[in-house]
Amino acid sequence: MSEKAGHGIRRSATRLDSYVDRYAARTKGMTASEIRALFSVASRPEVVSLAGGMPNISGLPLDVVGGAINDLVRTNGPVAMQYGSGQGDPRLREQICDVMRLEGIEAHPDDVVVTVGSQQAVDLVTRIFCDPGDVVICEAPSYVGALGVFRAYQCDVVHAAMDEHGLVPDALRDAIAAVRAAGKTIKFLYTIPNYHNPAGVSMAAERRPEILEICREADILVLEDNPYGLLGFDDEPYRALRADEAEGVIYLGSFSKTFAPGFRVGWALAPHAVREKLVLAQESATLCPPSFSQMAVSAYLSEHDWQGQVKQFREMYRERRDAMIESLEDLMPAATRWNVPDGGFYVWLTLPDGLDAKAMLPRAVTARVAYVPGTAFFADGFGAQSMRLSYCYPTADRIREGVRRLVGVIEEELELRETFGGGYGGQAGAGHVTRGYESPNTDLT
Amino acid sequence: MSEKAGHGIRRSATRLDSYVDRYAARTKGMTASEIRALFSVASRPEVVSLAGGMPNISGLPLDVVGGAINDLVRTNGPVAMQYGSGQGDPRLREQICDVMRLEGIEAHPDDVVVTVGSQQAVDLVTRIFCDPGDVVICEAPSYVGALGVFRAYQCDVVHAAMDEHGLVPDALRDAIAAVRAAGKTIKFLYTIPNYHNPAGVSMAAERRPEILEICREADILVLEDNPYGLLGFDDEPYRALRADEAEGVIYLGSFSKTFAPGFRVGWALAPHAVREKLVLAQESATLCPPSFSQMAVSAYLSEHDWQGQVKQFREMYRERRDAMIESLEDLMPAATRWNVPDGGFYVWLTLPDGLDAKAMLPRAVTARVAYVPGTAFFADGFGAQSMRLSYCYPTADRIREGVRRLVGVIEEELELRETFGGGYGGQAGAGHVTRGYESPNTDLT
Repeated sequence: MSEKAGHGIRRSATRLDSYVDRYAARTKGMTASEIRALFSVASRPEVVSLAGGMPNISGLPLDVVGGAINDLVRTNGPVAMQYGSGQGDPRLREQICDVMRLEGIEAHPDDVVVTVGSQQAVDLVTRIFCDPGDVVICEAPSYVGALGVFRAYQCDVVHAAMDEHGLVPDALRDAIAAVRAAGKTIKFLYTIPNYHNPAGVSMAAERRPEILEICREADILVLEDNPYGLLGFDDEPYRALRADEAEGVIYLGSFSKTFAPGFRVGWALAPHAVREKLVLAQESATLCPPSFSQMAVSAYLSEHDWQGQVKQFREMYRERRDAMIESLEDLMPAATRWNVPDGGFYVWLTLPDGLDAKAMLPRAVTARVAYVPGTAFFADGFGAQSMRLSYCYPTADRIREGVRRLVGVIEEELELRETFGGGYGGQAGAGHVTRGYESPNTDLT
Repeated sequence: MSEKAGHGIRRSATRLDSYVDRYAARTKGMTASEIRALFSVASRPEVVSLAGGMPNISGLPLDVVGGAINDLVRTNGPVAMQYGSGQGDPRLREQICDVMRLEGIEAHPDDVVVTVGSQQAVDLVTRIFCDPGDVVICEAPSYVGALGVFRAYQCDVVHAAMDEHGLVPDALRDAIAAVRAAGKTIKFLYTIPNYHNPAGVSMAAERRPEILEICREADILVLEDNPYGLLGFDDEPYRALRADEAEGVIYLGSFSKTFAPGFRVGWALAPHAVREKLVLAQESATLCPPSFSQMAVSAYLSEHDWQGQVKQFREMYRERRDAMIESLEDLMPAATRWNVPDGGFYVWLTLPDGLDAKAMLPRAVTARVAYVPGTAFFADGFGAQSMRLSYCYPTADRIREGVRRLVGVIEEELELRETFGGGYGGQAGAGHVTRGYESPNTDLT
């Protein structure tokens, strides 16, 4: 075979993606969602976005942060700007243990791995555990960014139902049994126990031991993703699953919601052997997480009343939650349902029968309000009748205005449905069950 | 099958790694190298480390950097601390295009993807292109961190020889032909054309069109990794491969060596369709690279004479290169060979026949000098007679002292070999050809 063997299949400049034949199998699942084009419209200032998951950080004391980082550069710059440990800054890992203690976790800094946001922790855990075809059990619905990771590693996601108290134990048992009956391998349960994204519910404290026991009995690892744990509207944070099960739980945390996401500092707390693999995976992925970011977060934690700041965040988010819930109660047509979250950023709203949140979205954006259709949060196409509404970023007034606009769109849909018959909502949606539409690739829009 | 199906194989607390049966296939290749334990000794201050690839950033103006970042927080903090685009900060991507213009590249910011160091760019490119068993062609030797990524994605690495002018065109042709004759798929050529890590050589300007033509003819993508391109000791940087081939080259750059590694800001410049996939992969891996790091680098570039700073770096590294080369010439025993690099951080040294750099390392560390054995830079166990010596981090005096100590160890080895016979070096090394020994997982130690 000569060195010119490939010449005959030389890529043509006229094709849209001349590389299309050479990507890895995993890349086939990576398609830009059609929803993105809509969200680029939705980011215009005249649109009220109830879609994004961005924290509101306008309350941060910029003089304190700027001063702390300036001091950091002047006193410790050559360390902060140099390569660091693949596992993360030792002082920050101690501070992370102090943060986790607020949720009942007793851990050693040696078992913490710093990651580029907790998104990267989901990526690295999946990388070390999951072969193509392995199963991850997720709540129904689940976090869109984690579903994207599982898809990128060619995992099969099996959903287990939630109710107003979080993941339903019997649904978890049934999912485990069904997967095993089909001869497939379950690698872990992915759960967001507190102030769920997108469902807005929390796993009831009395249900937690049962969930842990099911996983222990079935020998299934638990991946506990907890970015919102300190953002509850009542005083005491929930006790983490990890607090009562050190060996069978990998716990993920983040400073994105308690401080600021732009530093991209999250972490995984893992059993010792798993932690070793995570560090090797981190070194392969990035050599090391950013020293500068880590030391900036560390300086902020030690030089500022960060818990007082979190308290302010909680109060702000509670006011916005109240604004949203009050508007929904005042304005939404009958047969629309939603939950009242006790923390975090999200309300999960289900439309009257026959309406399709995905099909309705372009009309909502035209009416200058945006949300994320429920299908984004399922791996299997479910969720069309629901949507996620975020109250974290817009002000209370804008939230009320957004809900008003959304109600206008829903009422118009209901009228159309009445005029043209029950098929209207479904009909409009049917043509859109195409690749990627249901999958915004990030949670930031 | 009941929900207790897994109970019988419940993990035992007595096993060292109770998760060992559940990792992904790719994780089997991730083992901590035995060399690490040595390097933790080597990091003691009394040891002269000629092993690490850390840039020396002590010359950076801390007042300028601290002031620029303080201004950034105070004037643009809510943006710098917020989530950003998955593709990276638009202003920084424009500045990156200005940087690449110094190497003859005309590119649009739309085709740049910012990554968490260029290490992450290698990871993301491999992620989107490589299925298990796909082949990546690498120079012999090649960068240890890239080899680690290729192993993590279960690629087969096939090496092609270099000489004093870089990758040898006929060796590349032979490698391509041999891989294709074996029925395997080549996904790309990974090359470090300038001031190679670890070989210290550069691809001759007149050889570059031939390398590009071979890849074009064979329809093979080129991954051009260029962290050291602006650190040449002569005035004009080499013209990038990407400057003459936009469609068939993915170019990787980094601010780790021209500014500072602690921000972890690198980038990939890719053909449009590939760039889209890289952004999706980046969003899955991290949601977005750190806004704060990117805007800090951007502020430094615009507010400081960064090219003047790079000139200072070049002069410092040239002095250190000179100190190392002079010491080697003065002290090394006959039959030891090395190259004289015209830029970058590294000298590649080959020992007299019969000596084994890997077997010798514990004795070198005992003599308070460290290096990286050549085997680290090969996927196939070659390189035992060679080592990489770095002159980037220690001062000129320390470099001379390190070479003096290294010469002492080599002379002792030669004496032992003379006394006990030719088998000595090989014998000592034979027992160490075990998993991971040849693979330090990062380049930072």
